Amino acid sequence: MAASDLRPKARPGRPVGSPHNREAILSAARQEFIAHGYDATIRGIAAAAGVDPALVHHYFGTKDRLLLASLQEIGAGELSVEDALPQLLEGDPAQLGERLVRAIFAAYETPFYRAAWASLVGLLRVATANEEAAAMLREGLIGGGLFRLLESLDVPQPEARAALLGSELFGLALARFVIRVEPIASADLDTLASWYGPTLQRYLTGPLVGDVR
Amino acid sequence: MAASDLRPKARPGRPVGSPHNREAILSAARQEFIAHGYDATIRGIAAAAGVDPALVHHYFGTKDRLLLASLQEIGAGELSVEDALPQLLEGDPAQLGERLVRAIFAAYETPFYRAAWASLVGLLRVATANEEAAAMLREGLIGGGLFRLLESLDVPQPEARAALLGSELFGLALARFVIRVEPIASADLDTLASWYGPTLQRYLTGPLVGDVR
Repeated sequence: MAASDLRPKARPGRPVGSPHNREAILSAARQEFIAHGYDATIRGIAAAAGVDPALVHHYFGTKDRLLLASLQEIGAGELSVEDALPQLLEGDPAQLGERLVRAIFAAYETPFYRAAWASLVGLLRVATANEEAAAMLREGLIGGGLFRLLESLDVPQPEARAALLGSELFGLALARFVIRVEPIASADLDTLASWYGPTLQRYLTGPLVGDVR
Repeated sequence: MAASDLRPKARPGRPVGSPHNREAILSAARQEFIAHGYDATIRGIAAAAGVDPALVHHYFGTKDRLLLASLQEIGAGELSVEDALPQLLEGDPAQLGERLVRAIFAAYETPFYRAAWASLVGLLRVATANEEAAAMLREGLIGGGLFRLLESLDVPQPEARAALLGSELFGLALARFVIRVEPIASADLDTLASWYGPTLQRYLTGPLVGDVR
């Protein structure tokens, strides 16, 4: 499907306040964030949606707020923990940490997962200055997805484990995509899994201080 | 020493281009970043230095660039890896990961270490959009301090280990100070050491894929 198929044509007769415009902008924003990550621009998104950039500012204010809104759309859509859990939990529980790294990166070459990573990096950037983005990471990624993974494992202290998994993924995302530290930035999947897998495994199922033993 | 002792008086007779002004601004910036972290303002720094805010912009452009400049001053001064290494290396090598967490946080209540953490967090924020800040983290923190710690341990793959230690510290800094994920945000030092110590220990001395065994 060509990207242009997704772009609604500008319709001069459509009222400025129309909810169609808002949806068209969100849809275009999602495609542009998928294509360009955090480098997507308000101007490019407006062009893809066939509206004036001023209208994008009118609805969403800043690019950061538009990214937040389009992430909320993605979160409500394809990024389903329910879909990912059974596949993760299948197999040797002692290899779950490695499977988690592989699940995160294996599909990285698909546009959707590239977008999810680009969005996480964008969200981390926004979160350093924006409490709403910080709350999305706390409540969505950690309190939502990772906490549900932990609950399904029936281990003690699921909150602490989910927070530590989140901390590890923030560090990985920053080192690989933002700070671009070698050899992490260009390591292949097997190497990433061997480095980060045992750490994630310990946070998933290993003993933590305070566990009832 | 009262903060006002550190503030040079405004001297109307001093030429605008004087290097004294630049030094006074850097000194004031350092004090303000220590007191307020990344929330320090150009206006506050200018007031503390007894100069016009326009002069701060003239010398340093943005607050981000001023933070970078004052971090370079700190890096050249008190943050000495040579001073920290002997204390870290003393004692059981199997507890080095825990000692590293403790060394990082134990002195947290002193203004200098608070400033170092606030600066790391500020630097992470700047680094998401600024290649100069990213390079400082890559070359200063990871390629400098952490790499020298690894060299002194004489372990294989010191570059990979230094990068993984950096990744872990980025994640810890983000989770505790930026995203403020509980229970990491308010955990005490013993708990942090027990959570992160074994991970840092594995990156310091544990086997990594590719090691000659």
